[in-house]
Amino acid sequence: MYRATVHVTLRPSILDPQGKAIQSALDSLGQTAIESVRTGKRFVLTINADSEQEAREAATKACETLLANAVMEDFEVESVHALELVA
Amino acid sequence: MYRATVHVTLRPSILDPQGKAIQSALDSLGQTAIESVRTGKRFVLTINADSEQEAREAATKACETLLANAVMEDFEVESVHALELVA
Repeated sequence: MYRATVHVTLRPSILDPQGKAIQSALDSLGQTAIESVRTGKRFVLTINADSEQEAREAATKACETLLANAVMEDFEVESVHALELVA
Repeated sequence: MYRATVHVTLRPSILDPQGKAIQSALDSLGQTAIESVRTGKRFVLTINADSEQEAREAATKACETLLANAVMEDFEVESVHALELVA
């Protein structure tokens, strides 16, 4: 069993209205040091695989088919590590 | 200028219906190796600060006041690094 952490972010060229709204909300809270906010999604997948490579491929496939919108988002399989099975 | 990456995740004890829905969608797409999905948010903040420590504090404050729901979410300021200013 493996655990993969995946990040899905908007492409840099894509406008981020949610990020803009968060940044102006922080501004109105007096946190003016925050100049910009880019939002994204983070998924932690538990994967039944025989190797780390197989788990990474399963995570990549999940991103390509469902988790990331290929038109406007990039994804990155950040880490894959084995889970110790508790006997 | 600094760039901070922040993760906001649901506490382990909190149910994740969105994750459950994603997992069953992947199942119906034949990707049965994915046993569970936990969803979260990822923010990339550009911060006007004089030191890395000051930037980290600003990112933490933004999480405490707006980005993370203290009742059901945990947050982590994953990385803070200086941005080279292009002259």
